[in-house]
Amino acid sequence: MDNPFLVEVTRGQLVESRHRGSISVVDADGATVLSIGDVDRRVFPRSAVKALQALPLLERGIADKFDLTDEEIALACASHSGESEHVRVAGTMLAKAGRDVGCLECGTHWPMGESASRALAAEGKTPNALHNNCSGKHAGFICLACGTGNDPKGYVGADHPVQRMVRETLEDVTGACHSMEKSGTDGCSIPTYAIRLPSLAFGFAKFGTGAGLSGEARAAAERIRKAVAAHPFMVAGTGRFDTKLMEILRERAFVKVGAEGIYCATFPELGYGIALKVDDGHVRAAEAMMAGLVLRFLPLNDQERAAVEALAQPVFKNWNGIEVGGIRLTPALLG
Amino acid sequence: MDNPFLVEVTRGQLVESRHRGSISVVDADGATVLSIGDVDRRVFPRSAVKALQALPLLERGIADKFDLTDEEIALACASHSGESEHVRVAGTMLAKAGRDVGCLECGTHWPMGESASRALAAEGKTPNALHNNCSGKHAGFICLACGTGNDPKGYVGADHPVQRMVRETLEDVTGACHSMEKSGTDGCSIPTYAIRLPSLAFGFAKFGTGAGLSGEARAAAERIRKAVAAHPFMVAGTGRFDTKLMEILRERAFVKVGAEGIYCATFPELGYGIALKVDDGHVRAAEAMMAGLVLRFLPLNDQERAAVEALAQPVFKNWNGIEVGGIRLTPALLG
Repeated sequence: MDNPFLVEVTRGQLVESRHRGSISVVDADGATVLSIGDVDRRVFPRSAVKALQALPLLERGIADKFDLTDEEIALACASHSGESEHVRVAGTMLAKAGRDVGCLECGTHWPMGESASRALAAEGKTPNALHNNCSGKHAGFICLACGTGNDPKGYVGADHPVQRMVRETLEDVTGACHSMEKSGTDGCSIPTYAIRLPSLAFGFAKFGTGAGLSGEARAAAERIRKAVAAHPFMVAGTGRFDTKLMEILRERAFVKVGAEGIYCATFPELGYGIALKVDDGHVRAAEAMMAGLVLRFLPLNDQERAAVEALAQPVFKNWNGIEVGGIRLTPALLG
Repeated sequence: MDNPFLVEVTRGQLVESRHRGSISVVDADGATVLSIGDVDRRVFPRSAVKALQALPLLERGIADKFDLTDEEIALACASHSGESEHVRVAGTMLAKAGRDVGCLECGTHWPMGESASRALAAEGKTPNALHNNCSGKHAGFICLACGTGNDPKGYVGADHPVQRMVRETLEDVTGACHSMEKSGTDGCSIPTYAIRLPSLAFGFAKFGTGAGLSGEARAAAERIRKAVAAHPFMVAGTGRFDTKLMEILRERAFVKVGAEGIYCATFPELGYGIALKVDDGHVRAAEAMMAGLVLRFLPLNDQERAAVEALAQPVFKNWNGIEVGGIRLTPALLG
């Protein structure tokens, strides 16, 4: 089955590039609200499920035990830009568990944010593992290990108690079996388990509404959603799509990007969960599609609509500020 | 017509993302050697035709008049990384025409190369127009203007004598009409004219062989090819695909990337010109496809084959050096 064209990139009067993709929107009963393209092909959810991976930290009372703040909880769900505030908060999370940067097993890279990367270089510094875009999630894993009496060493391994807790939570929430033979290794070295989009969307409908979750899981999901809505900067960073969209919509939408054009979201007031994948993995298309689904489903006032429209169908300007083209969504997506 | 899958991006045992595209390979008579996908859809050649855009500078004797070196001629065809050597050479080109950075109309951006960008920041500096990846091409345009007695001011405009000379050359070499209604504005503000892939490939077959070109154009094309083969660092930069491939193959292949997944090339010993476009604009797929066409067509020794194979089907390692997946080409491309 060929997935349809959902995003067009224009230049002058022509379409220069095109993106295909698939989308699943389901409600908290698991009923299909919208299905576009081949949603049965398994995809790696990558960083789009970080909020679900953070649930055990809250459910098991570890966040309270270590007195984690809302900013720290938001950072546990982040693919952050490595700005100084992100790095600082990742450090305080580790300190609360009595650990430091030396425990992180995510690897080191220059900050994802280009400005942050140059700022670090301008200080004559080089990055450490706290600058890794996943350091907040990993700091959360280390808190989870320490808080449950486990040695964090090797916490990225599929057989470590941390990853077993995380996998059980992912299976509980999505209802999908997470088997090793359908797994891959993520950029930060933890396992990522291939899953069908409707299962992923169902998980996020439950995450957004609490329906079908235990009391602890429901409270954990609500706390995560409120923490991220209060601190959208922490989950991404300056100028980033997730930060900008949640600054507009706050608790009305939880959205999270993952590598290779995957996106998960929930619109709690509608009870919807959303999962989408761009065939070619391009994040610009995934972002436009997610903003387009906000336009399609959420009631918005004029100001909100204009702000989301600018994210869904941005205009491209060149280095001299001349308008050269833009992104537009196809009727298949906008409905 | 749906273009076929030509590139797969794997993780673990699964295909995570896929790229479709179209390819045209023609010989210097214009006969089709290979045609994949919808090659009749017009594409913007963007920076992939910089070598053709540099022809008037050589044909009209301006390069000799200003005593341009091979490094400078190579930089005139470049989408460079903004490393200090690129910036220096762009400056000397302008100085030879009696001009300076203030004449450049390409706009300013931080160096395309991340290391170069951080190195500039570490020096406490900010970029100027010499760091723009197109500064060499623009310095060439300014040389062309000054050398032909024209005021360079406004040289990016479609009606300026420089762009008229460039457009006439593009029409001569490709045999395709370059009309304003099918034009767009490039990132560096010059016009880019939509064209069919076979016309583009034909132009590069002529560029690679000299067949069908005037004596001046043939000599100009040969000088450009030799200059780039001698200085492949100048056309891209440290670690970049075009630099690495031409360091392996030297005069046996001229290749040039453009934005949005376009690529042009010529293999002079076979008399072939090549043009390809990735539907979604992803450069990783365009590079893999170009390396795949080298494997398909050019006779290579074991060492060359291994080096090109590593560019065609690279392995991905994560931040901890763990192998997580890679790129592989489909039989439709490898033949």
